[in-house]
Amino acid sequence: MNCLEERILKDGVVKEGNVLKVDSFLNHCMDVKLFDEMGAEYAKRFAGKKINKILTIEASGIGIASIVARHFGDVPVVFAKKSQSINLDGEMLTAEVESFTHKNINHVIVSKRFLGPEDHVLIIDDFLANGCALQGLIQICSQAGATVEGIGIAIEKGFQHGGQMIRNLGYQLESLAIVESMDAATGKITFREQA
Amino acid sequence: MNCLEERILKDGVVKEGNVLKVDSFLNHCMDVKLFDEMGAEYAKRFAGKKINKILTIEASGIGIASIVARHFGDVPVVFAKKSQSINLDGEMLTAEVESFTHKNINHVIVSKRFLGPEDHVLIIDDFLANGCALQGLIQICSQAGATVEGIGIAIEKGFQHGGQMIRNLGYQLESLAIVESMDAATGKITFREQA
Repeated sequence: MNCLEERILKDGVVKEGNVLKVDSFLNHCMDVKLFDEMGAEYAKRFAGKKINKILTIEASGIGIASIVARHFGDVPVVFAKKSQSINLDGEMLTAEVESFTHKNINHVIVSKRFLGPEDHVLIIDDFLANGCALQGLIQICSQAGATVEGIGIAIEKGFQHGGQMIRNLGYQLESLAIVESMDAATGKITFREQA
Repeated sequence: MNCLEERILKDGVVKEGNVLKVDSFLNHCMDVKLFDEMGAEYAKRFAGKKINKILTIEASGIGIASIVARHFGDVPVVFAKKSQSINLDGEMLTAEVESFTHKNINHVIVSKRFLGPEDHVLIIDDFLANGCALQGLIQICSQAGATVEGIGIAIEKGFQHGGQMIRNLGYQLESLAIVESMDAATGKITFREQA
């Protein structure tokens, strides 16, 4: 069991509707020491990859990505912006992603100046469920001609399909905690075994 | 001249309407090494203060605050959320702040669980101009009964009134770069001399 799985069992709270509340250490109050341990774990899992940029998305991904960057030689961290509307001015890479949950369209936006064919990218985000945000980030890397070297997620909801789909496409996706099931009544959380 | 002032002169771009573009290193593509140097500078300026929490606001403050936390003993970093509408559920500290620029009302929101009377807070943000966001963060600390030990800003627009107003209230406000004037035609940026 790694540092994040242990912390989820200690401080995560399961709510109705398959909601896992981790705001006391991950996405509202941030335990930067934990993020540093997570960074060390990603460095192990992506050892040998030549990564020169980290890409994440506002807002919850930013803190994790910033600390994780230390473990990859302090590479620049680019965060994509989310917007419901977008003025295309030609200087932006934009991906349209439809939310499974809310059925609305969101745009993921990165300036062309900060992502290009020379980039070998590690994508970092806090959660992966259906994977809409992640699909947008991959699409943007593809538009930029950048190479996605790997994807590092904190918590994956293994009972939803985002992770499987991304692995089926051949990406190295490393989720530090993959939740197989959780129960709001008992609070019980079961993780997928990882090698 | 400190690390941030030097970087602004090198990579900052002055645009019409008193806009200073620093997205290549501060608030879209983030230079985490620079953030680390900024953290060291804040640690000097706030030496002797007992800080047990850092408070910032999404999205651009999060990366800076996360890295700066290393220089304050890896204290927890709480980021406030911004919202145009708010459902008051009693569990949230919320401050209403009116934007000078857009005349609209924004809400700054922090869970009550993450800020209380035991907290000695360093507030961190990327920009200070009129200071609306900062006023909201101070108001929230006050609601929580927390003590604001200091405020660390990356770039202050010294020709606007936010900084002066906060200093007049007696807060220790440390801006690493205070822009006295800038000229979109020539690109010239002048900083306030700091001791």
